[in-house]
Amino acid sequence: MKTILIIGGYGFLGTNIIKFVEDYLKGQYKVIVFDKFSSNRSGSTFDCVVKSYAGDFSDSVVVDRVFAENQIDLVIHSLSTTVPSQSFNARYDVETNLVPTIELLNCMVRHKVCDIVYISSGGAVYGDLSLKQHKESEDVFPKSSYGVVKLAIEKYLMQYAALYGFRPLVLRLSNPYGPYHFSRQQGVCNVAMNAALLEESFVVWGNGDAKKDYIYVNDFVNILFILLKKGIHRQVINVASGCLVSVNEILRQIRSMVPSFRWTYGEASKYDVSQFELDTTKLHSFVGDYRFVGIEEGLRLLFEWKKKEV
Amino acid sequence: MKTILIIGGYGFLGTNIIKFVEDYLKGQYKVIVFDKFSSNRSGSTFDCVVKSYAGDFSDSVVVDRVFAENQIDLVIHSLSTTVPSQSFNARYDVETNLVPTIELLNCMVRHKVCDIVYISSGGAVYGDLSLKQHKESEDVFPKSSYGVVKLAIEKYLMQYAALYGFRPLVLRLSNPYGPYHFSRQQGVCNVAMNAALLEESFVVWGNGDAKKDYIYVNDFVNILFILLKKGIHRQVINVASGCLVSVNEILRQIRSMVPSFRWTYGEASKYDVSQFELDTTKLHSFVGDYRFVGIEEGLRLLFEWKKKEV
Repeated sequence: MKTILIIGGYGFLGTNIIKFVEDYLKGQYKVIVFDKFSSNRSGSTFDCVVKSYAGDFSDSVVVDRVFAENQIDLVIHSLSTTVPSQSFNARYDVETNLVPTIELLNCMVRHKVCDIVYISSGGAVYGDLSLKQHKESEDVFPKSSYGVVKLAIEKYLMQYAALYGFRPLVLRLSNPYGPYHFSRQQGVCNVAMNAALLEESFVVWGNGDAKKDYIYVNDFVNILFILLKKGIHRQVINVASGCLVSVNEILRQIRSMVPSFRWTYGEASKYDVSQFELDTTKLHSFVGDYRFVGIEEGLRLLFEWKKKEV
Repeated sequence: MKTILIIGGYGFLGTNIIKFVEDYLKGQYKVIVFDKFSSNRSGSTFDCVVKSYAGDFSDSVVVDRVFAENQIDLVIHSLSTTVPSQSFNARYDVETNLVPTIELLNCMVRHKVCDIVYISSGGAVYGDLSLKQHKESEDVFPKSSYGVVKLAIEKYLMQYAALYGFRPLVLRLSNPYGPYHFSRQQGVCNVAMNAALLEESFVVWGNGDAKKDYIYVNDFVNILFILLKKGIHRQVINVASGCLVSVNEILRQIRSMVPSFRWTYGEASKYDVSQFELDTTKLHSFVGDYRFVGIEEGLRLLFEWKKKEV
């Protein structure tokens, strides 16, 4: 049985990874969580989680203790202290995300842990140069400090691969949505669905016409474990569903489930990318013809989950 | 008359920029220097330098004072606390180069200074994937933390361009050599020439066959001012001579001037790139058919200068 350490394990993606292990991979993995919270915010408990460490990611002594006290086989790094739309404070981003990640990598070197999955972001890293599909091999133009820091972490991971034998797997994710998204700010599906269910008004940044790729979170986690099972590493891989949807389309879908739902339009954020599509040729070369959950089905699943939770 | 602030003005490139202003552009620019040293290490003084600030680049209060006390028109950022071949301490690199540079940019925002030239590094940023010529538009694979930090700074500069109207000019330089290179570690021409003149032995990292692009420093500075004069900005530009030379060839050239010169071969450094060539199509689209000083002439000029200095 392998032990996975999930950095940021009680966040949106982390919790979904845990849920997936709990539901489908229980005999194969046990999970240790490092997070600023000591338990999942939904109140759910998971048998596969054998230990939780609550701490600040910048506290390298606590992070080191996690490795000293446990035999970790794989690290999944899914923690960020900032979001792309947050006010632009590059120094804060560097000091609370980049530096602690470097310390995490150094800690892995000391404890001889070589396997790490890093959850990067397609939208934040590529920027929106044009409408073309972004390929892993192209130059990138991050519009936010969040994106620059993710890029720098990707580059350090590949250096640690060359210098210390790390086996990093970097996943540049499109826009994941689904259960356990507790943020009040991030994820249009999540925030709009909350507004609909709480009968609050929702403000769209921009005109809502820009189309982006949305991926149901379970598909992402499934793909993550397929890639791990195949032993794919030292790769940067776009992970996207190919399902391009506008915010307006998402809002209309939500209104079909919550007829009272209303929204208005506000000014576009400077930090957000207006439109983007990821080239998934590389992904499909590893996972084959994966069948993704469509936006209608995904929003319906999210709706069913939210109705119980919100 | 415009005022240039040179961050790292008493280093190798900074001093050559000052010397060029002194010799050719005296009526057009005056220079303010920020450096860890309070004067040039050669003992030379330059009339065009109107003020010098000695301080640590991490001391953002001192950096801010430079802008508060002077009307700066253009910043040339040529400071690095680390070199690519230094032991791999990513955190130190981030904390002493990236964070202070972010503070410099924020300082420029506060004082409404928009023009900045950033001296980046072709070898450190691109890495050595293959023997092909590296283009500005390709994905990069820095082999050192030094290179990751330079890349992150480039990306931040382009963000500050979008957010605050910055006019950054990023120059990805090949291997500059020439007068005023005071480092005991950096620059094979410099270190080997010192060894020859001091009758010390010189150790080549690797077999000395790998060919790299070398650019005489005066050509670099000349090009920098041509680009500035043309108002080129918001660009990342490779600056290289197209003159590919092996270390063995350089050593033979030096031996032709100092017949007693001897060298041995040691293990290659992990952090060094083994071979690289920069595509200069973009550079030449801006500067036309620039005639570069050849390696033989350049080394002869360096030799003449060193004989007086060492």
